Amino acid sequence: MSQPAARQEARVIAKGRYLTLLEEGGWEYVTRPGITGVVVIVPFTPDGKLVLIEQRRPAVGRSVVELPAGLVGDLDGQPQESLLDAARRELIEETGYAASELVPLGDGPVAVGVCDEIVTIILARGLSRVGPGGGDATEQITVREVALADLPRFLDERKQAGLAIDVKLFAGLWLAGVTVPR
Amino acid sequence: MSQPAARQEARVIAKGRYLTLLEEGGWEYVTRPGITGVVVIVPFTPDGKLVLIEQRRPAVGRSVVELPAGLVGDLDGQPQESLLDAARRELIEETGYAASELVPLGDGPVAVGVCDEIVTIILARGLSRVGPGGGDATEQITVREVALADLPRFLDERKQAGLAIDVKLFAGLWLAGVTVPR
Repeated sequence: MSQPAARQEARVIAKGRYLTLLEEGGWEYVTRPGITGVVVIVPFTPDGKLVLIEQRRPAVGRSVVELPAGLVGDLDGQPQESLLDAARRELIEETGYAASELVPLGDGPVAVGVCDEIVTIILARGLSRVGPGGGDATEQITVREVALADLPRFLDERKQAGLAIDVKLFAGLWLAGVTVPR
Repeated sequence: MSQPAARQEARVIAKGRYLTLLEEGGWEYVTRPGITGVVVIVPFTPDGKLVLIEQRRPAVGRSVVELPAGLVGDLDGQPQESLLDAARRELIEETGYAASELVPLGDGPVAVGVCDEIVTIILARGLSRVGPGGGDATEQITVREVALADLPRFLDERKQAGLAIDVKLFAGLWLAGVTVPR
């Protein structure tokens, strides 16, 4: 499923630099012009560890534990970038890992009362390190590799430390068929 | 985790009727003033069926298969409503089911690059029918009860019919410990 095209029935309330606030039939939501999708990656190292990232998120005033993710089609000169190419690029940028296998697992909206964002969740396997990760010039990302057996303890510990856990992580685990004793 | 309080560092770009577009440190996001949280409910009938809803979502221009969900603290005269009270109320409004047992499973942001929304996912068991469901006066909701063994086929069929699947559904299933053959 691709990002929905802007619809003529929607009325623009305001345009920010990145986000546009719209009203349509009594509902309000935001859109991010100029992107064609959002990819969320579920990456596993050859020894079975899940690769997560942590980054400061102003919207919630704290750092968040997340799956690697990124916008599709937002780079100058690459408006036709595919979902898999974007996933490959974002995984390298954020974690330093290249994936030899990328498998789309599912897609859908995540916060449909607030925004039109449609995410595509993609499994990444066959990882090999090709760079330092850490994100692009605007991002400050910490990479975490977690054995699945340690995941519940890891997440509890990060919450105790004041971080939030992005709910898309749980969706990615379900779609990847991961079961963890809890 | 409660909804983050509006922070003084954030600059208001625009105020809609329901959503406010903010800028903070070069990031843009929206907030919904006047709520204290968002609850997402994973309801199981006594015979083990998952209760889902379908409703038209203007943000993505189609109907979406979702877990029942709603805003907390947005009703006049109930600003102190608890997460569990809101979950109980929304489940009845949307599905017609009262739950004798509500268990918080986890919480976190869902679209942290776009909004400050923090959802709390709550398991609901011991359901008994007390009303028609279908949502409040502003909502048009269709209730679906799906046996877990039929869930993959059901979701495939709804996607074929043009509906989207809310990704929070997969997160709820993981947190509820549901495994489905796929």
